[in-house]
Amino acid sequence: MFAGFQPVLTDETRTSPFVFLANIDPALQTEVLEQFDDPRVVACDTMNHWIETAREPLIELLPRVDLLILNDEEARMMADERNIPRAARRILDLGPRSVLVKRGEYGAILFSAESVFAVPAYPLEEVFDPTGAGDTFAGGFMGYIAAHIDDDLTDEVLRRAMAYGTALASFNVEGFGTERMQTLTADEISSRVSELQRVNVFDATPVQLRA
Amino acid sequence: MFAGFQPVLTDETRTSPFVFLANIDPALQTEVLEQFDDPRVVACDTMNHWIETAREPLIELLPRVDLLILNDEEARMMADERNIPRAARRILDLGPRSVLVKRGEYGAILFSAESVFAVPAYPLEEVFDPTGAGDTFAGGFMGYIAAHIDDDLTDEVLRRAMAYGTALASFNVEGFGTERMQTLTADEISSRVSELQRVNVFDATPVQLRA
Repeated sequence: MFAGFQPVLTDETRTSPFVFLANIDPALQTEVLEQFDDPRVVACDTMNHWIETAREPLIELLPRVDLLILNDEEARMMADERNIPRAARRILDLGPRSVLVKRGEYGAILFSAESVFAVPAYPLEEVFDPTGAGDTFAGGFMGYIAAHIDDDLTDEVLRRAMAYGTALASFNVEGFGTERMQTLTADEISSRVSELQRVNVFDATPVQLRA
Repeated sequence: MFAGFQPVLTDETRTSPFVFLANIDPALQTEVLEQFDDPRVVACDTMNHWIETAREPLIELLPRVDLLILNDEEARMMADERNIPRAARRILDLGPRSVLVKRGEYGAILFSAESVFAVPAYPLEEVFDPTGAGDTFAGGFMGYIAAHIDDDLTDEVLRRAMAYGTALASFNVEGFGTERMQTLTADEISSRVSELQRVNVFDATPVQLRA
């Protein structure tokens, strides 16, 4: 399908500090990445097909990636390991700074050398059209990082980016195609991020347990 | 297997304010419940087998239950609905004050009329023996409630009980059978609850999104 596809970036695009390598042949992802001058944050989406048929170029790409995005089955396939925390650890050993595992209705979980962060999906009773949820998540995630990164890609920024990606994806599935996204306001997004926090917040103050 | 099983509680047991109806024929669960004087919190575990073969007695029991515990497939079966938030809503309409849906490696999610609370599983790289994880969760959950309830079963107590149940279950699977539970200290439990919070915490302060 992409035979002969040789993307050439414009000079303006080459200066972007934020790169999202969408899900395509890892050899092409590498060619695209090499056209950027000096990217600060490189995210890379992939899928079972490339893990199976283009494993070597994908693995060569990983040390240049800040954030690898895949779903839980793909993480298991890539690491040849069923346990997701252990699979993520093995993938981190291949070089990406963090691994974001998408878990559909269960949310997503982010692994890095220092931290594990799990965000639930926003619990929606009406899912009108799930098409594009993953891509909307990635868009919200990268958009948050691009708008809010300071010097470094801190764990705190990554966590908030996960929450914003989750919120964006939850809006997207409420309407057909991109309908809902076209009317979405910044206030609606912030409100949903607060509601998402309400879904997972608890007080962890230590208590004296009775014997 | 339980033919002819007619549990008769001691006088001391009848006065307990906290009742956990373990996973058994709903008709027997009802007989057990009726022997309590005036329980404050009634939790009820069930499974696919009873949902299929004893649906009527189970449904009759539900309005007397504060907390129904089942896994996601069982929730779908009971409500005849794939979407878990909607399935939980339908089950709440049958009378229990809250519905706790266990999701295995993804954690658990609690639905009530006012609130939805999702807790992730504690991300363990080594799961030695998963046997008893669900029962340990329930034990930690009920134990927390029994030790910390004030007047009413508040949403905050329920959330903390979910976190303690999750922490307890995570210890249980680290060893064979109940091995790990026998050496467990209150400090270890509190530490793990804090670590669990570290897994899902993020800052939801609204931000000014760039246009």
